[in-house]
Amino acid sequence: MFRTHTNGELSLKNLNEEVTLSGWVQTIRDKGFMIWIDLRDRYGITQLVFDEDRSSAELLEQAKKLGREFVIQISGKVIERTSKNPKIPTGEIEILVAKLTLLNASELPPFTIEDETDGGEEQRMKYRYLDIRRNPVKDKLIFRHKMAQKVRNYLSDKGFIEVETPVLIKSTPEGARDFVVPSRMNPGQFYALPQSPQTFKQLLMIGGIDRYFQIVKCFRDEDLRADRQPEFTQIDCEMAFVEQEDVLEIFEGMTASLIHEISGKETGKFPRMTYDEAMKRYGNDKPDIRFGMEFVELNELVKGKDFKIFDDAELVVGINVEGCAEYTRKQIDALIDWVKRPQIGASGMIWIKFQNDGVIASSVNKFYDEDSLKKITEKFGAKEGDLMLLMSGEANKVRTQLSALRMELGNQLGLRKGNEFSPLWVTDFPLLEWDEETGRYHAMHHPFTSPKPDDIHWLETDPGKARANAYDLVLNGNEIGGGSVRIYDKNLQSKMFQLLGFTQEEAEAQFGFLMNAFKYGAPPHAGLAFGFDRLVAILDGNEVIRDYIAFPKNNSGRDVMIDAPSHIADEQLDELHLSVHEKK
Amino acid sequence: MFRTHTNGELSLKNLNEEVTLSGWVQTIRDKGFMIWIDLRDRYGITQLVFDEDRSSAELLEQAKKLGREFVIQISGKVIERTSKNPKIPTGEIEILVAKLTLLNASELPPFTIEDETDGGEEQRMKYRYLDIRRNPVKDKLIFRHKMAQKVRNYLSDKGFIEVETPVLIKSTPEGARDFVVPSRMNPGQFYALPQSPQTFKQLLMIGGIDRYFQIVKCFRDEDLRADRQPEFTQIDCEMAFVEQEDVLEIFEGMTASLIHEISGKETGKFPRMTYDEAMKRYGNDKPDIRFGMEFVELNELVKGKDFKIFDDAELVVGINVEGCAEYTRKQIDALIDWVKRPQIGASGMIWIKFQNDGVIASSVNKFYDEDSLKKITEKFGAKEGDLMLLMSGEANKVRTQLSALRMELGNQLGLRKGNEFSPLWVTDFPLLEWDEETGRYHAMHHPFTSPKPDDIHWLETDPGKARANAYDLVLNGNEIGGGSVRIYDKNLQSKMFQLLGFTQEEAEAQFGFLMNAFKYGAPPHAGLAFGFDRLVAILDGNEVIRDYIAFPKNNSGRDVMIDAPSHIADEQLDELHLSVHEKK
Repeated sequence: MFRTHTNGELSLKNLNEEVTLSGWVQTIRDKGFMIWIDLRDRYGITQLVFDEDRSSAELLEQAKKLGREFVIQISGKVIERTSKNPKIPTGEIEILVAKLTLLNASELPPFTIEDETDGGEEQRMKYRYLDIRRNPVKDKLIFRHKMAQKVRNYLSDKGFIEVETPVLIKSTPEGARDFVVPSRMNPGQFYALPQSPQTFKQLLMIGGIDRYFQIVKCFRDEDLRADRQPEFTQIDCEMAFVEQEDVLEIFEGMTASLIHEISGKETGKFPRMTYDEAMKRYGNDKPDIRFGMEFVELNELVKGKDFKIFDDAELVVGINVEGCAEYTRKQIDALIDWVKRPQIGASGMIWIKFQNDGVIASSVNKFYDEDSLKKITEKFGAKEGDLMLLMSGEANKVRTQLSALRMELGNQLGLRKGNEFSPLWVTDFPLLEWDEETGRYHAMHHPFTSPKPDDIHWLETDPGKARANAYDLVLNGNEIGGGSVRIYDKNLQSKMFQLLGFTQEEAEAQFGFLMNAFKYGAPPHAGLAFGFDRLVAILDGNEVIRDYIAFPKNNSGRDVMIDAPSHIADEQLDELHLSVHEKK
Repeated sequence: MFRTHTNGELSLKNLNEEVTLSGWVQTIRDKGFMIWIDLRDRYGITQLVFDEDRSSAELLEQAKKLGREFVIQISGKVIERTSKNPKIPTGEIEILVAKLTLLNASELPPFTIEDETDGGEEQRMKYRYLDIRRNPVKDKLIFRHKMAQKVRNYLSDKGFIEVETPVLIKSTPEGARDFVVPSRMNPGQFYALPQSPQTFKQLLMIGGIDRYFQIVKCFRDEDLRADRQPEFTQIDCEMAFVEQEDVLEIFEGMTASLIHEISGKETGKFPRMTYDEAMKRYGNDKPDIRFGMEFVELNELVKGKDFKIFDDAELVVGINVEGCAEYTRKQIDALIDWVKRPQIGASGMIWIKFQNDGVIASSVNKFYDEDSLKKITEKFGAKEGDLMLLMSGEANKVRTQLSALRMELGNQLGLRKGNEFSPLWVTDFPLLEWDEETGRYHAMHHPFTSPKPDDIHWLETDPGKARANAYDLVLNGNEIGGGSVRIYDKNLQSKMFQLLGFTQEEAEAQFGFLMNAFKYGAPPHAGLAFGFDRLVAILDGNEVIRDYIAFPKNNSGRDVMIDAPSHIADEQLDELHLSVHEKK
């Protein structure tokens, strides 16, 4: 037996017990006549002691030869520590070692296995197995596990069935993003890896499963932006015989229970906002509502005062940054530079200060008299000490720019607190968006999303105006889930494919099986999918999803630890009837 | 709202309530003046009634237009049935319908949606979503879900962490069986889909995760035998600082708890048997011990009596088929024909009957006198009424043949009862097996399996003799799980790769990351993986794993419902720098 206890459980209750422990050598303090070793495993740290008086010379010699990350097994007696460590559960005891077995030696690890490591990102990824030994990484994986368990038990209790859908499926029209898998048994033919189990979950609804979920890997072969992974995990859900309200209720309940589990806090009823409202109030369809700084539209007040920039703008809009009137010129210039960066692309920014002395100062005093500025200030609801920042331009653009500034200020001012949870439903998304590049409509959510019944008529006349029965769950400024009521009428589905520019043949080739299934009694159904990696990160007060993945890939889609992808043998290619060539 | 209740929950308790139900039309009985409809959903069936006296003419007309599998919503009052159906929970009530809404029509389904369907395998797979509406299929998916939940909760309670390992990994030496995935971002390079997360779970142990599990999809691109799937699901587990005994104890507990959940029965301690013993007693490393018919070796008793077939044989071995002495000549000939089939390949079989009248008859009376036959009978422990069947030949072959016969007789005699569970650990497997074809050793389990410490010396002198710390969990004659204590010493691991014919470069290229990890303090570890699809099937008293997969593939690896794999666009191939060619 390698251990009688783990390294996290012994206390004064175990005094004088003979125990056996195993683990890694975290630290060695060698005072010559005495040696202390911190022994670590997943569960904690236990201090081991060897000394001249109480240990044999051999044992001491043995202990002296140990190094960091050596794997050892010891037996000994639990004794009380003279200098206690109240920070750890085992801090009141230590083990007077009687026997030491070296289970495995270790070379010096490439970085320190401490909460704060000296290892850089690349080293840590290459030696991810060592990185995982560190508490911050290990704890994130354990947190992820607990969240998955909680989700599964919550949904199971609500009658949801977890059904595994296939990983080897068929390539879809968004095919450019599909990973494909050549079939040896069917030469020249390919499977695709699912970007989501969308069609399968709809088929399960047609199959009468009624309530389905799955925590499932999905795949997307696209250029990776920072913190995107080619394989990612979804909590995928679908329900039959429901309306939007039923879906929102279930998953609000689930999310609230996760938040409660973590924080002990009740979230109350989640606020809801339409897409239009979110864009107007926050310039963003996933607003962080942990803080205010809502958008204030100013066209009425600022136009016609000969300030050309505002006069020419489609929209003049601003935010009130509370308590920041004392920002220096330098601080304000830094913000102006920030919005002028190419990533944001604003041409400038106007400021108005409602100073603590009651004076209203601004960068546009030339154009606006005191009365005008006062009216603007009132519109903002600003009080003495507040700083107002105004941007202008083409409405959509300026909203996006101001939204970025709002988030930046939220960060700078510490308003985006990791331990605070502000969920929000955003509803009534547009059904379609016009893509200038391809000159046609794209589904904003996906092609199976149902238009709002009242808006179906727009499909014939002005499709861009149709809103969808689609909804996103937003948490702390991140979209953690999204879904929709689905189309279940084969004619409406055909119409949608048509609008999206599919020929009938294309629709048939890609989704024939789904269209066919619609012929045999498809029930009304709706669903939702959570990005599980992101959900977990945000629930843990973090935003870096990579930290919550045991073996993530880098921005080039590479696993630097195992060195994948890699070249394969010619015989293997040959078996697949494939050859690799330079790009034509 | 589509429904106030499901179709499985209304009873006399709900009498006179106004309810709304939704579902599929299972059956319509139209008596002209009265119409009964069975309305079905996942939860059950509720009878609807329309009649001339109590329903409007329009409503009756509407109901008459419905067909099988139409999706409808109804509202009405719960009333007591005149003729009750005690077989279903809702059998005492029916709904007097006041309002009927057609949610979706259905074409006539290609097969009947009944427990016993008229649909053939191929039709059912093509329209799998209709097949899933049938109780036997739906119930199997629900059963699978429940088992997965039970496993997850059991292991979580024991401190196991579910960690998701990557699906896009690196191709391994058993590469011929890997599905590969071309990478668009890394042209000419491929990921592979995992045949199991073996190396990753070992890295998690090196990473200190201590107790890991995962219910995870695995992939194998090999010619599919009946009931093999290119993608299948494992319960994958690994533990650190454990010996074989610890692993057996945990997973025995888990399996026992699943069996208890299903059958209410306690299994008691699982019996154990070494590989050698299993081969000797049952001719098989996964014996079904729900019934006896153990092998009896007869060399001592039967040789030297001038019966050339036995004299020439390496092994003469038989089974006692209790109570079958009255088998007719025709019945026995059928068994002889059965073992002579090419799949079994026996050259013949000898029978001995211990008749009910005390006489011992046999097909070898010419060679064996009464006394000899009596001794043989005694060796079998046979009693009056028993039939003994003897086979002979090369030891390994004849054991395999007789084992097949034993199983066939088990089936014929109804000894393999679906609701009876007989688990068994088989231990001490050989470490290596010699492959005549390639002229070298193959790992019987996998290259990471530890030899028994006592047997390590054989690696130098006679590797074939080394036994492994490997174990299988057998249930009702099926291997449901298998695992081993792993090598955690880098020198021993190198030695193993060498024995398996890897050059150092090959070992480095394929497993360098694991060998490297062994340098940094690898703990002792061991694990096990269950074939989840098979486990679920067997626990449900079935053996056809395909039935427990929502969307299975056929024997050519095709999903006939979605028609995958399929051809992909040239542009897509081009993006991957690939071209398809005829086999060279």
